[in-house]
Amino acid sequence: MLIMSNEIKSQDSALVVRIARLVIDTAQLDAYKAALKLHAETAVKVERGVLNLYAVYETKQPTHVTVFEIYASKEAYQSHLTTKHFLQYKTGTAGMVKSLELAETVPIALETKFKTTH
Amino acid sequence: MLIMSNEIKSQDSALVVRIARLVIDTAQLDAYKAALKLHAETAVKVERGVLNLYAVYETKQPTHVTVFEIYASKEAYQSHLTTKHFLQYKTGTAGMVKSLELAETVPIALETKFKTTH
Repeated sequence: MLIMSNEIKSQDSALVVRIARLVIDTAQLDAYKAALKLHAETAVKVERGVLNLYAVYETKQPTHVTVFEIYASKEAYQSHLTTKHFLQYKTGTAGMVKSLELAETVPIALETKFKTTH
Repeated sequence: MLIMSNEIKSQDSALVVRIARLVIDTAQLDAYKAALKLHAETAVKVERGVLNLYAVYETKQPTHVTVFEIYASKEAYQSHLTTKHFLQYKTGTAGMVKSLELAETVPIALETKFKTTH
């Protein structure tokens, strides 16, 4: 019997889990935050394999932004990079980003009961 | 009519969203990861106001651990600090943690459809 499941499990070793750490130009911070918010909402909404985009800035250093990213697989991540909304975000914010550090990570625990609502 | 809702919304300005960045003693890394995993699973399971604990280590620097934390409110966070499982984790891992940096943050976007399963 073939069992089809759409469920993506937190133990799934195919998951791609990444942290992006950015420093944003102070003068363009509001514009950057608006672009990132729109991008995160769109990507998680329309791309099945973009599972999680948490974007925050630090209270004490508001130009320091962190994004906690979970993709269902390497293929989902590669596909994400080719989407219109990602390319629009990337080119639209290129002049706002002073530095970008990407850290590939391995999950220790991915515990959540948080629900995004709009 | 009184409507009771248990829903916690991502726009909720009461949310406490924090990033913990730790560096762990290499010789004790496996023990630390086991303790953190147990702590994250327990806290999100038993504490209503602990909404999210994502804990990862960096592929290129396995002693560098990041925890992305979401609490329902300041009260939920303060309550968390007094729980038996938190105190056990904190005292049990004190000798394993070489440095700990806590960053208070403000959400730009908290987009998720990730489901934790065990």
